[in-house]
Amino acid sequence: MKENYKKYVSTMRKIADVNNTIAVLGWDKEINMPPKGAPFRSQQVATLSGIAHEIFLDADFADNLNALVKNKKKLNFKQRKNVELTYKSQTRSQKFSTEFVMRNSKAISKSYEAWLAARKARDYNLFKEALGNLVEIKKEECELVGYKDHPYEALMDQFEPGAKVADLDVLFSDVKKKLIRFTKKIAACEQVDNSFLFKKYPHQKQWDFGLEILKRIGYDFEAGRQDISPHPFTTNFAPTDVRVTTRVNEKNFNSMTWGCIHEGGHALYEQGLPVNEYGLPSGQAVSLGIHESQSRLWENNVGRSLPFWEANIGLAKKYFGSNLKGVGAMKFFKAINKVNPSLIRVESDELYYHFHILIRYEIEKGLIDGTYSVDNLNEVWNEKYKEYLGLKVPNDLKGILQDVHWAYGSIGYFPTYSLGSFYAAQFYAKAKKDIRGLEKQIEAGDTSKLLEWLRENVHQHGKTYTAAQLCKRITGEELDFKYFMSYARKKYKVIYDM
Amino acid sequence: MKENYKKYVSTMRKIADVNNTIAVLGWDKEINMPPKGAPFRSQQVATLSGIAHEIFLDADFADNLNALVKNKKKLNFKQRKNVELTYKSQTRSQKFSTEFVMRNSKAISKSYEAWLAARKARDYNLFKEALGNLVEIKKEECELVGYKDHPYEALMDQFEPGAKVADLDVLFSDVKKKLIRFTKKIAACEQVDNSFLFKKYPHQKQWDFGLEILKRIGYDFEAGRQDISPHPFTTNFAPTDVRVTTRVNEKNFNSMTWGCIHEGGHALYEQGLPVNEYGLPSGQAVSLGIHESQSRLWENNVGRSLPFWEANIGLAKKYFGSNLKGVGAMKFFKAINKVNPSLIRVESDELYYHFHILIRYEIEKGLIDGTYSVDNLNEVWNEKYKEYLGLKVPNDLKGILQDVHWAYGSIGYFPTYSLGSFYAAQFYAKAKKDIRGLEKQIEAGDTSKLLEWLRENVHQHGKTYTAAQLCKRITGEELDFKYFMSYARKKYKVIYDM
Repeated sequence: MKENYKKYVSTMRKIADVNNTIAVLGWDKEINMPPKGAPFRSQQVATLSGIAHEIFLDADFADNLNALVKNKKKLNFKQRKNVELTYKSQTRSQKFSTEFVMRNSKAISKSYEAWLAARKARDYNLFKEALGNLVEIKKEECELVGYKDHPYEALMDQFEPGAKVADLDVLFSDVKKKLIRFTKKIAACEQVDNSFLFKKYPHQKQWDFGLEILKRIGYDFEAGRQDISPHPFTTNFAPTDVRVTTRVNEKNFNSMTWGCIHEGGHALYEQGLPVNEYGLPSGQAVSLGIHESQSRLWENNVGRSLPFWEANIGLAKKYFGSNLKGVGAMKFFKAINKVNPSLIRVESDELYYHFHILIRYEIEKGLIDGTYSVDNLNEVWNEKYKEYLGLKVPNDLKGILQDVHWAYGSIGYFPTYSLGSFYAAQFYAKAKKDIRGLEKQIEAGDTSKLLEWLRENVHQHGKTYTAAQLCKRITGEELDFKYFMSYARKKYKVIYDM
Repeated sequence: MKENYKKYVSTMRKIADVNNTIAVLGWDKEINMPPKGAPFRSQQVATLSGIAHEIFLDADFADNLNALVKNKKKLNFKQRKNVELTYKSQTRSQKFSTEFVMRNSKAISKSYEAWLAARKARDYNLFKEALGNLVEIKKEECELVGYKDHPYEALMDQFEPGAKVADLDVLFSDVKKKLIRFTKKIAACEQVDNSFLFKKYPHQKQWDFGLEILKRIGYDFEAGRQDISPHPFTTNFAPTDVRVTTRVNEKNFNSMTWGCIHEGGHALYEQGLPVNEYGLPSGQAVSLGIHESQSRLWENNVGRSLPFWEANIGLAKKYFGSNLKGVGAMKFFKAINKVNPSLIRVESDELYYHFHILIRYEIEKGLIDGTYSVDNLNEVWNEKYKEYLGLKVPNDLKGILQDVHWAYGSIGYFPTYSLGSFYAAQFYAKAKKDIRGLEKQIEAGDTSKLLEWLRENVHQHGKTYTAAQLCKRITGEELDFKYFMSYARKKYKVIYDM
């Protein structure tokens, strides 16, 4: 089996080289490509995707993989995991006929175009037919892929392998029960002044400040770089080349700062994946939920904490002295954590955020199991915003048309955002136990021990453990919303003097 | 044959997509890649190169190509040319065993490293063994590929298909006879003052000025962009995405300006290649010589002409007013054309330049046919610099180690630089005949008719004609050095008051 495994590794690396090259094409498209380059660029991406797909579904590769699966007892633990995960994803791919793949990809193109048109007209009705068509295809996908308890699980599985509706229902019922009550309590408190965050923060200074913050949390600029793009993202071509992007809004301190730290958190994960496992599942991130746990941990648990700003308020003042005159770490900490319901998910604070996800989770699951229809989905949306956030949605652009995910056919993706926060809270609680004086270290500007802990507990394993296994291994428990609640209670008690 | 040709086109486009993607990886490496990204980037390039090679040498593709070649009478002129050229390049590839390709690539790696070490020590002796090894492999390559009259032609053929030693011998004997005499005459004249070109020219202003000049010669920024790199180059991923780079030296006006126009000329060619012929020989540049004719025509025949600066001196003064106080178009024109022998090829004026190439041509040809040995090649070099340029070479770094070409195994490449200038002169002479009042147009800041003429006569044809055929088609004559000489005589008569 040694030779078989070697052969398997070599093909996996070849596929990774092609896929990472596609990522370079994508990054270049966002950052550098001149406008007329678009059509040939799309063609080049399509050609390379086809090549990667061909290699992955090649008969020799499949035969060799089958032989490995049959003899997996001869492999060590990590090798076995790799082979099993590759086999699983190959089996999934084989379930889709070329006809289905093409129909799906056409439906996505159409629904994306319809979404753009609907946004322009602020009218969901222009989107619903295309969305309905896509939902039917997704239902078909569920049946092709198969599932145990709920068809929606077949969709979630691509983003969060092994995720169960039953577990998510528990988590989100906690959100409903505990978080709604908690945010209501906050709403009744005296409000925090954060107006100084909306003074003029000059572009160049924000940019320099962002780079400095990235350096301070341990992002390795020898193995990455930051650029500007309208929608911040992280992309990687190898653990040695992980790039982030950010955006700058001169009238809003928050926009770049939390974007930087959030993407930085994703990037620290990618930079921490084991180089020797390049191209193998053991060299890849566990799931979107675990990925998000890394970005959220740095963004919220660290980046929006008092100790972090005890350490960094000086830096902020160096760049934005006049805006921050008389603002100490505590005042700053309170301002950046102001809680306020908003209509737009990506502008939300870290508490109301989960209502945005809850709503999307209920709707997607309902679309797949037939509880909801696309016909009046904007009304369903608006009712839920009224119920959970107490907000009236003035138009579909600020409502159901705000996110691109469904237009892209990404149904089953949204829950991973909340999972990320909940994992982050549980992991961070454990890190505080494991690392003596962690918050003192952070207060002294040193997050290196925390990064080391994440490298050791999360990053180095790649996909060797599932999200659930990893959580159990690290914290000794299954994922539990209580960690998020206790993190929130402790934090907002200080902020709102509760 | 219609179906066969369609199939052929589709595979050629697939190969082009892969190769253009490799070009994106290369561009990104020079412009953006963080240092630690290098090893995986090399691996990704190697994987994609292997994939392109596999597709090109695939048995089905070869069978189909053979069928097309056999039935080429059923194809139209352009199709036939495409098929023939592809067949020729496939036949060439098939002549190299994998063993040979790997040995060649190892020899190149070694000689490149040896060259770097030798440069550091300024000592050719550290390079000669590796170079000798590479020369032996190149001799082997000549025999594998085959040739008619001189083995060196087998090497030139990759860069300048169809180039003959007999023709080059004629051209370079003209260089020796006519150009040496002419430059001696110039050396005896009163020298030109160009000191104002070496005042401080600020980086940002040079950059902005360069962009403006590129726009003025017709470079399409919707289908390209400019960046900074230590060695300027042009690269293309499709005619709709052709990128140039430049460098800025604050103490030298020339460095960026001619670099910009030179690369701009290459880019205008690539942007003018027919989009519909993407991936086919008919959509690719004829040869390096013809490519260079486009860069040189814009750089020298246009960019170093009096009419061009009649039109653009105002722009130069807008950016560099204080440096150019009292400098009119004529004074500027004289300064930028100052003739002066120098040791370094890339710093040469446009006349002495051809002695640099002459020397390299004589040496490479002599290495391949055994006239010269690598043992004392630096001495050979130094003697020739003494003879043709009247210069003493102080050390090997300023002598035989100055260019990377041989270290990369590119033997047979250098002559294309001179060919470029000679073709440019001959084409430009014809353009002046064809376009009424061309120099008046240029003086009025309008180079669009010239670009149109080049598009029609050169760019649109891709490789449909060889360099020799193209020259005959356009000018009615074979390439003749007299056009370069008469261009030079007319120009320098004004400059040196001869």
